[in-house]
Amino acid sequence: MGEQHREISVAEFFEKNRHLLGFNNPQKAIITCVKEAVDNSLDACEQERILPEIHVSIDDAGGDNLRFQIKDNAVGIDRDVIPNIFGKLLYGSKFHKLQQSRGQQGIGISASGLYAQLTTGNPVKIYSKKKGQEDTNMFKVRIDTQNNEPEIIEDRVVDDYDFQHGTSIEMEIEGRYTTGHHSVRNYLKHTAIMNPYSRIVLNEPDGNTIEFPRVSQTLPPIPKEIKPHPHGVELGVLMRMLKNSSSRTVSSFLQSEFTRVGRTSADKIVEKAGLSGKERPLSLEKSDIEDLLEAMQNTSLQNPPTNCLSPIGEDLMEEGLRKELNPDFVASVTRKPSVYRGNPYQIEAAIAYGGDIDEDGRYEALRFANKVPLLYKRSSCATTEAIKQTDWSRYGLSQSGNIPKGPVVILVHMASVWVPFTSEGKEAIAQYPEIIKEMKLAVQKVGRKMKRYLSKKRKEKVLKKKRKKLSAYGTAMAPALEKLTNVEEDIIRKELMETLKKEYGKEAGINGGDS
Amino acid sequence: MGEQHREISVAEFFEKNRHLLGFNNPQKAIITCVKEAVDNSLDACEQERILPEIHVSIDDAGGDNLRFQIKDNAVGIDRDVIPNIFGKLLYGSKFHKLQQSRGQQGIGISASGLYAQLTTGNPVKIYSKKKGQEDTNMFKVRIDTQNNEPEIIEDRVVDDYDFQHGTSIEMEIEGRYTTGHHSVRNYLKHTAIMNPYSRIVLNEPDGNTIEFPRVSQTLPPIPKEIKPHPHGVELGVLMRMLKNSSSRTVSSFLQSEFTRVGRTSADKIVEKAGLSGKERPLSLEKSDIEDLLEAMQNTSLQNPPTNCLSPIGEDLMEEGLRKELNPDFVASVTRKPSVYRGNPYQIEAAIAYGGDIDEDGRYEALRFANKVPLLYKRSSCATTEAIKQTDWSRYGLSQSGNIPKGPVVILVHMASVWVPFTSEGKEAIAQYPEIIKEMKLAVQKVGRKMKRYLSKKRKEKVLKKKRKKLSAYGTAMAPALEKLTNVEEDIIRKELMETLKKEYGKEAGINGGDS
Repeated sequence: MGEQHREISVAEFFEKNRHLLGFNNPQKAIITCVKEAVDNSLDACEQERILPEIHVSIDDAGGDNLRFQIKDNAVGIDRDVIPNIFGKLLYGSKFHKLQQSRGQQGIGISASGLYAQLTTGNPVKIYSKKKGQEDTNMFKVRIDTQNNEPEIIEDRVVDDYDFQHGTSIEMEIEGRYTTGHHSVRNYLKHTAIMNPYSRIVLNEPDGNTIEFPRVSQTLPPIPKEIKPHPHGVELGVLMRMLKNSSSRTVSSFLQSEFTRVGRTSADKIVEKAGLSGKERPLSLEKSDIEDLLEAMQNTSLQNPPTNCLSPIGEDLMEEGLRKELNPDFVASVTRKPSVYRGNPYQIEAAIAYGGDIDEDGRYEALRFANKVPLLYKRSSCATTEAIKQTDWSRYGLSQSGNIPKGPVVILVHMASVWVPFTSEGKEAIAQYPEIIKEMKLAVQKVGRKMKRYLSKKRKEKVLKKKRKKLSAYGTAMAPALEKLTNVEEDIIRKELMETLKKEYGKEAGINGGDS
Repeated sequence: MGEQHREISVAEFFEKNRHLLGFNNPQKAIITCVKEAVDNSLDACEQERILPEIHVSIDDAGGDNLRFQIKDNAVGIDRDVIPNIFGKLLYGSKFHKLQQSRGQQGIGISASGLYAQLTTGNPVKIYSKKKGQEDTNMFKVRIDTQNNEPEIIEDRVVDDYDFQHGTSIEMEIEGRYTTGHHSVRNYLKHTAIMNPYSRIVLNEPDGNTIEFPRVSQTLPPIPKEIKPHPHGVELGVLMRMLKNSSSRTVSSFLQSEFTRVGRTSADKIVEKAGLSGKERPLSLEKSDIEDLLEAMQNTSLQNPPTNCLSPIGEDLMEEGLRKELNPDFVASVTRKPSVYRGNPYQIEAAIAYGGDIDEDGRYEALRFANKVPLLYKRSSCATTEAIKQTDWSRYGLSQSGNIPKGPVVILVHMASVWVPFTSEGKEAIAQYPEIIKEMKLAVQKVGRKMKRYLSKKRKEKVLKKKRKKLSAYGTAMAPALEKLTNVEEDIIRKELMETLKKEYGKEAGINGGDS
């Protein structure tokens, strides 16, 4: 048996399991590729305080293939890391950081390259020009899947590339360009709603150009990188942190490696753990570490800082929905930050009703994780679960089963230093109960606002009907009353109108106004 | 930016994403651990033609922790691969082979170890005794997650371990032992249905012992390992195969590296590709390779051989269902093998109705992939989709929405050299349209059999009612007829009974028999 055993490279693994990365079929493949590249561009721009400007061009490349190019105005990529970024899976700068970003796993863009070479045999072509430098680096990179290492096909410096600074990626893949819900266009539209400080231009294969203009000139603040919170760490991780620590004492280890642990909290924790705090981190026995962990988890500490999060905010959410959907009513909420497994996160929700929104059938969901639209796996997503667990009839909507119906769009956004996706393809948010609960509170909040709007609307409708009735009644009664009272018909009509006005607030007239 | 970039080990990746491996929560964690170990044991026994005998023991280990041991009677594991098997993710003997087996990714059991050390800090303990050897090797292994390499904590030879031969694994994890649908007990019960040649004993934490006895003494034939089929290969893979080939010519490359390609087919393919066949594999240009691939895909070839598949078979499926469910009616079907993306696969289905099966509510599904029960992610599974796309009212069941209702259990099994799971946790089968179609044909076949049974049952019921009515009628009429005809009442009654018998087949008597 022994001789048959061998290591499996992570690239081989995902080549065979490419559906896990979002490459299930040609239609989804092109969306996934665009998504991974756009996510990286937006992350890079925000990090460097540049208002993003992204051009996406997609062309037919013959047969079942598409060629695409994605070009940004970020600060470019260091020459020495380019091959690894595009030619090695599980490589990147975001995985080991606790900071909100669109990418987090170091798989996305290299997986696109893997899919490209699998289906068309072609390498990825990268142009990148660092800000302040003259030269543009051009690479053609493949992945040596058996070793998960980049294979550099070409590497040269060009001086005629049309760039101020930034990165441009070109690939050829087996893909199918479609419109509709599952489409590049829809993905970019949703991206524009959530990233209103970006300008995105899409050239479609048929020559059509769509621009999603910048509607805000303000970049959100850079989310801060944070350290782990003592309440969210697991035993195995704590053991590794102690082993790798360069701190001289357990007390200084706690203060330097965790957030929200100062001198006083560190003292409390070590005391609870039956330690002095002066022990060297490496000297702790397993039972000491277990005690330490228990003490960490049972010492009350401030919640993690939330400047590591970058929600979109109520105003921008509403502005985005108004711009794209032209609804009659919009409401939004940004909840306070919360924590799951030690990871800070924040839920936002918005609701749009009426106007240009389609009347027929079920609601439309706009799902986002760290500002990235989620188009697939709706039924496995925590957002969907939160919406389904909400009784929408209480908020004035009709329901079929537990699905709200009507001209309504419900937006849910999770911002976090670590979004728990249900697969490497990052298509749906895993159903942690605490996350679903936060999402429910958010959608219920906007639901209540919508209810007020709908009740008011309904009341106005009833009122209008009543007014119309009374006004008709008055018209018929006035001549009869004239005879009875000898008061002139016109005066009676005027009196009746005044009464109606008092009763029903608005301008109301017999036979007049708003019938 | 550059200095922050680094490689991410696959162990780090899955430590942070442990929900992808089936370690979402303590209840699921213990099921996943048992599943991975039992899968390996069954694979090893079958491969070595040993009737499996597996003992699973689970104990409380204080706090939220469980300790478990799983011991098999397979042939043991080579000493030099033990550390890698348990201490390195993506390592194994099954990934690179096209052969039906329960494990396929080289992640399962090492992932359990990863979860164990993350939650309890403890290493995995392994005892393994090779068949025909005296000594038992004992290892304690941890995973160095930053490098995805095993760390050997202890390594010694013991001579007092209670073994003929086989492997025993011990771990301590954060886990919660439950009963019900999502439970170790249910997982083993379903395993017993699908692997009736195994004996499995479960010791539960409360001291309870459950035995799933062996009901068949016949091991299924070993599924053969096959080579890839030319119709299922992708360009990138073909390029790599050509690059790594030791064949001297393209023609011999085709014949030696693929299944169903003999001399004649190879000639046809190279001719279609505009090649002579005498080219050296490494010498082909990319355009040649594209032509070659197109020719491979457009040359009609025999389907892949199917001795790489090991279905359970109709008799054993029915026997398993009868034993565990005691139903009134069982039907089953093993479909002919089919192919998706070049991978041979085979669908089996069975249906059980009535008897001890619960009347209330929706049907129960028994889902299997390569004989392994799938307990989670039902709604994302191809099996569920196939059942939902079937109109069960045509087969005599009532439906709520598209969900069949009644005292009915529907079993679907996919056997394949490569089951496309929706996640590394191997919990659901991805919804490839061709696979769903095969599954539908299978469940519809057993549906039709059930329909015949249910119609017959319904007819018998109607008949019974009629007979009862006529018999009562006869009883009342006989005295009147006696007066009219002067024939004795007893004779009239007897005549009537004879008539009923002729009309309605069965023993029928006036006032008699089966009222």
